[in-house]
Amino acid sequence: MAYGDGFLMSSYYRAPLGLTHLALAQAVEAAGACDIDGYEETLGAVAGAVLESAARFAGDVLSPLNRLGDRSPSRLEASGVTTPPGFARAYRMLRDDGWVSLAAPAGCGGQGLPMVLASAVTEMWAGANLSLAMCPELALGALEVLRAHAGPELIERYAAPIASGEWTAAMDLTESGAGSDLSSIRTRAERQDDAWRLYGRKMFISWGEHDLTENIVHFVLARTDGAPEGLKGLSLFLVPKNIAARGRFEPNDIRALSVEHKMGIRASPTCLMALGERDGARGWLIGGVNDGLACMFTMMNHMRLGVGLHSLGLGERALQLARQYARERIQGHDAAGAPCAIIAHADVRRMLLTMKALVHAARCLAYNAAATFDVASQSPDATVRAKAAKRLDLLTPLVKAWCSDVAVEVASLGVQVHGGAGYLEESEVSQVYRDARIGPIFEGTNYIQAQDLLSRKVLRDGGVALGELLKEIEQAARALAVANIKPLAPLRAQLLEGAQRLRAAVASLDTRAGESDLIGAAAYHFLHGLGVLAGGWQWALAGAKAATQPPGAQAGAIMATAAFYAAHVLPRVPMHCSIIEGGTDVLVRALPEDI
Amino acid sequence: MAYGDGFLMSSYYRAPLGLTHLALAQAVEAAGACDIDGYEETLGAVAGAVLESAARFAGDVLSPLNRLGDRSPSRLEASGVTTPPGFARAYRMLRDDGWVSLAAPAGCGGQGLPMVLASAVTEMWAGANLSLAMCPELALGALEVLRAHAGPELIERYAAPIASGEWTAAMDLTESGAGSDLSSIRTRAERQDDAWRLYGRKMFISWGEHDLTENIVHFVLARTDGAPEGLKGLSLFLVPKNIAARGRFEPNDIRALSVEHKMGIRASPTCLMALGERDGARGWLIGGVNDGLACMFTMMNHMRLGVGLHSLGLGERALQLARQYARERIQGHDAAGAPCAIIAHADVRRMLLTMKALVHAARCLAYNAAATFDVASQSPDATVRAKAAKRLDLLTPLVKAWCSDVAVEVASLGVQVHGGAGYLEESEVSQVYRDARIGPIFEGTNYIQAQDLLSRKVLRDGGVALGELLKEIEQAARALAVANIKPLAPLRAQLLEGAQRLRAAVASLDTRAGESDLIGAAAYHFLHGLGVLAGGWQWALAGAKAATQPPGAQAGAIMATAAFYAAHVLPRVPMHCSIIEGGTDVLVRALPEDI
Repeated sequence: MAYGDGFLMSSYYRAPLGLTHLALAQAVEAAGACDIDGYEETLGAVAGAVLESAARFAGDVLSPLNRLGDRSPSRLEASGVTTPPGFARAYRMLRDDGWVSLAAPAGCGGQGLPMVLASAVTEMWAGANLSLAMCPELALGALEVLRAHAGPELIERYAAPIASGEWTAAMDLTESGAGSDLSSIRTRAERQDDAWRLYGRKMFISWGEHDLTENIVHFVLARTDGAPEGLKGLSLFLVPKNIAARGRFEPNDIRALSVEHKMGIRASPTCLMALGERDGARGWLIGGVNDGLACMFTMMNHMRLGVGLHSLGLGERALQLARQYARERIQGHDAAGAPCAIIAHADVRRMLLTMKALVHAARCLAYNAAATFDVASQSPDATVRAKAAKRLDLLTPLVKAWCSDVAVEVASLGVQVHGGAGYLEESEVSQVYRDARIGPIFEGTNYIQAQDLLSRKVLRDGGVALGELLKEIEQAARALAVANIKPLAPLRAQLLEGAQRLRAAVASLDTRAGESDLIGAAAYHFLHGLGVLAGGWQWALAGAKAATQPPGAQAGAIMATAAFYAAHVLPRVPMHCSIIEGGTDVLVRALPEDI
Repeated sequence: MAYGDGFLMSSYYRAPLGLTHLALAQAVEAAGACDIDGYEETLGAVAGAVLESAARFAGDVLSPLNRLGDRSPSRLEASGVTTPPGFARAYRMLRDDGWVSLAAPAGCGGQGLPMVLASAVTEMWAGANLSLAMCPELALGALEVLRAHAGPELIERYAAPIASGEWTAAMDLTESGAGSDLSSIRTRAERQDDAWRLYGRKMFISWGEHDLTENIVHFVLARTDGAPEGLKGLSLFLVPKNIAARGRFEPNDIRALSVEHKMGIRASPTCLMALGERDGARGWLIGGVNDGLACMFTMMNHMRLGVGLHSLGLGERALQLARQYARERIQGHDAAGAPCAIIAHADVRRMLLTMKALVHAARCLAYNAAATFDVASQSPDATVRAKAAKRLDLLTPLVKAWCSDVAVEVASLGVQVHGGAGYLEESEVSQVYRDARIGPIFEGTNYIQAQDLLSRKVLRDGGVALGELLKEIEQAARALAVANIKPLAPLRAQLLEGAQRLRAAVASLDTRAGESDLIGAAAYHFLHGLGVLAGGWQWALAGAKAATQPPGAQAGAIMATAAFYAAHVLPRVPMHCSIIEGGTDVLVRALPEDI
C-alpha cells in the first residue's frame, strides 16, 4: 500500500439522527405546522421509525455505492445508458421499500407524510449518495406538477407508477441556447390527432435516460405552433419514453444522444435528449396551452428546496469525513508537548466548527421551508395557508442558493482539514468537493435565485414579506435576552444589528428601484446577507431550546456552536450590507471593457 | 457534436502583458529595487523581450498541452514514470531556450536576472500549464539552497546541470507521519566512507520521478544516527537519482513506488519515493549535520513565493476563460429587450470584476515580494538588505496563503460564470477549479502560513515589521487624497480604517499572547485581513499611477477596478477583525466534543 499508517481510511456516511430530530422539531414549531390537525400525531407516530430506517438505508445501501459511482460513471452504450454497478439494485430496494412515495400526496399514490419528514430523508439520501438521490427527488417534483396542473386522465395513468417508483421522472427544460433564459426555448409541439408531436433537443437532463426502470416520464417545455415568443408561449408536455398501449410498451420518439462527462455527480446520467428524430415524440399537454411557465415553476420550486437539502446532506458528509480524519490523524503537538490528533489544533477546530455551524444552520432553514410547505398546503385556515405560501416564496430561493453556496464552502474546508490526503482521488472528501460544485449552478443559477429573491419576493411587495421575516428573527433574538442566556448575548446583539443593517440596505435600494441593473448588482450580496442572518435565527432557536434542557453533551455542543456561529459567521452580515450600500454604483458604472 | 452553437469553445491562455508590465514597474518602485546598481537598466533592456518571448512560449507551447495533461496524467510503468504526450518535448524546448536559469544566480550557472522578472515568467508558465510549471520552479529552490548552504564541491557538480535544466530537482520532505509537522521525520542517514546512505520513504514528492531528463537531484530531509529528536535533529542531503562516475551514470538506490491519483495538477507526477531498499541511497550532506531545518526553509521560502505566483497564474487563466465565455454566450436580454451576451448582466460583471480585482491585487503583491527579494539579496547597503529581508519574511506566508486562497475563490467564480458548461470535464475552467485547490495545501498548509505570519513574523518582534507595512499602506492611501483622486476616495478611507482595525485586532491579541491556542485561533482571520488590506494597498498604488496617465481605456479600467476592490473586497477587512476580536475566545473554549 502506498499510504502510511492510518493516513487514509475508509469511511461511511452516518445520518446525524440527533441533530435531525432537533431540527425537525424546531421547524415544525417555528413554522406553526403543529396547528395542522393530526400533523404532530403523525410525526410522533412515524418519525422515529422512518428516520432510523432511512438512516440505515442511507448508511448501508446508498453510501457504499458512492465512490464506485464516481469511478464508474453512467455512460451511453449501444443499448442505452448504463448506470454504475449496484445502482439498479439499490434503486429497486429504495422503490420496493416505499421510499419514493413518502411525501407524495395520498391522492397521487403517495403516503402523504409531512414534507418536513421527507426532507430529512432526502438530506440523508444526498449525504449518502447524491447522484442516486437526485433520481427519486425528480419523482416528487413531477407528482407535484401533476397534482397541481394535470387533468384526471394523466393523473390516473402516470401518478401511481411515478409515486411507487416503478417509473422515474425527468425535467426537460434546458436547450443549448436556453439555459438561465427559458424564453429562447425552440422545441416545437404540433397537435396531431389525440396527442401532440414534439421536435427538438434538450440538454443537461438529469436521469434523462438510464437502466433503473422500464419507463421514464419526461416533462418537456416546448412551444406550440403559433405560440407567442418568449416565456408566455411555453407549454408543458408529458412525454413518456415508452407508451403503454394494449398491455405492452411502444417506444416513443425520444432518446439520449450523449451523456455528459462532469466534474462531479458522475453516476447521475446527464443526458442530451433528442425528441422527434423520426415522426415526432408523442406528448400530452399538462395544464393549458401557454401555461407552461406556471407548471414549470411548480416543479422548479420543489426542485429548488431539493437542491438545498442535497447541499446540506453533502455538507454533513464533508463534516463527518473531516471530523473523523481530524480525530485520527496524529500530527504536531499539544500544549504539553505530546503528539496529538489534529483536532487539538485551534485552526482545525475553527474549520470543523465553521462547517458544523453552517451545515446545521442550513439544515434548520431548509426544514423550516419544508414545514412551511406543509402549512401552505395543509392548514385548514386559508389565511394561514396564504401567509405560509408567501413565506415559502421568500425561503425557496434562499434555501436553494445559500445552502448550495454553503456546501461548496464546507466541502472546501473539508478538503483543507485533510491536507494532502484530501487532494487525492482516493479521498472521499475530494469527491464531495466536486459533487458540491453543481449546487450553485443547476435548477436556476444562484444569481437567478438572488434576483428572484430581491426583485420578486422582496421589492415587489414593498418589503412586507421580508419585514415579517426580519421581525420573527428579532423576536427569536430578544427571546435569548428574556431567557437571560448569557453565553448567547453576542448572538442576540448581532442578530438585532444584522436585521437592522439589512433593512437599511434594502431601503437604500428601494428608493432607487427604477435604476437599471441596480437589483442585479445588489442581489447576490443581499441573498447572502439574508442567508447568514436566517442561519443565525435558526441558531437562536436552537440555543434557546438547548438552554432549557438539562446540561449535557448535546445541549453544551449546541450552545457552543451557536456562540461560534455568532462570532465567526454573523460578521458576514454587515460586510454584505456594506457592499450593497457602497458597491452597487461602482458595479453599475463599470463597463464590460473594464474587465 | 453534443454541444450547441458556441456553447463550448476552445480557448488558449494569453499572458496579460499590459498588466504584467504595470505590476512589474509598480513592484520595482515600491520595493525600492531601483536603488540597486544596474537593476533598472537590466530590466529596461531585457524585460520587454523576455516577457514577450515568454508569453509566446506560454501560449503556444505550454498551454495547448494543459488539457491533455489532465486527461492523460503521469503514471508509473515498468520503465518508470511516464509523463503525458508532448510534455518531454515541451520541457526540452523550455530548457533549450534557457528559461530554467533565468533568475538563477550567475555564480550557479544562471543568468542572474532580477527575481521580479522571473516571477512574471513563472506566473505565465503556471497560467498556461501549472503541472509543467512546477518542474522548473523546483530548480530555482534547489539552486537557492545550494548557493546559500552547500560546499563548493556540490555546487561545482550540481548547480550548472540544474540551472541549465539538464537535470531537474525534487524536494523530499514529507513522510506519511510527517507532513505539516516535519519533526516526526524518520528517514535515516548513516555515514559510510565518503558519503551517506539514506533509508526511508518520502511521500507527495512533486516531480520525484519522470521521463523528462536523465537525472533528478533530490533534496532529502533525514535524521543522522544519534541526532536529537524533533526539528533540531534534521539534516538535508543531496541524493541524485543517478550518480555520475567515470563518465557514466550509476543508478542510486532511490525509486518511485507509486504515483498519486489527484483531483488536479494531474500531469505533475506526485510520487511516493523509496530510499535505501537495497544498500542505501547515497547522499551528500548540505550544510552541517542538524542544519537541515535552516536549509529547508531557504528552499521552502522560495517555493512559497512560487505557490503565490502559480496561484495568480491560475486565477488569471480562470478570468480569461470566464471573460471570453461571458462575451460570447448569448443569454437573456439587455435593458432594451435585445438578446445580449451575459457580460451585460450585472451579476456576471460582479463575478468577473471580483476575479480581476483579486487576481491583479495578488499579482502586484507577489511581484512586490519578488522585488523585495531582489533588494534583500542585491542591495549594496546592508541596512537596506536587512530591512528588505524582514519585509520579505512578512510577505512570504502572506503571498503563499492569500494568493492561493484567492485562486480557489476566483476559480469557483470562473466555474459559476460558465453555468452548466463550467461543470463539464470538457470545460477548461473545471480543470482550473481542480488544479487551484492544491495551492492552500502544499508547501505548508495555509494554516501553517497563518501561524508563521502571526506568531513568528508579527508578534515575535512586537509588531514592528507589521507596523512598518501598515504605515506604508496608510501612506499609499493618503497619497490618493493628496493627488485628489476623487473616484478613489472610498479606497483611501477603507484602507485607513482597515489598517487601524488590524492594528487594534493585533493589539487585542498582544496583551494576551501567553494564552494557549490564542494565536492558532486568530491566525487565519489575521492573515486574510492583512491579505485583503495589502491587496488594497496595491490597488492604491495602481490607481494613483493611473490617475496621472492620459485618460484612456487602460487607465480607466485600472481606476474602475480599484474602485471596485474598495467597495466589494475591502469590507472583508473589518469582518476578519470582528472575528478576531469576538471569536478567538469562543474557539479556544470549544471542546473537540462540541464538533
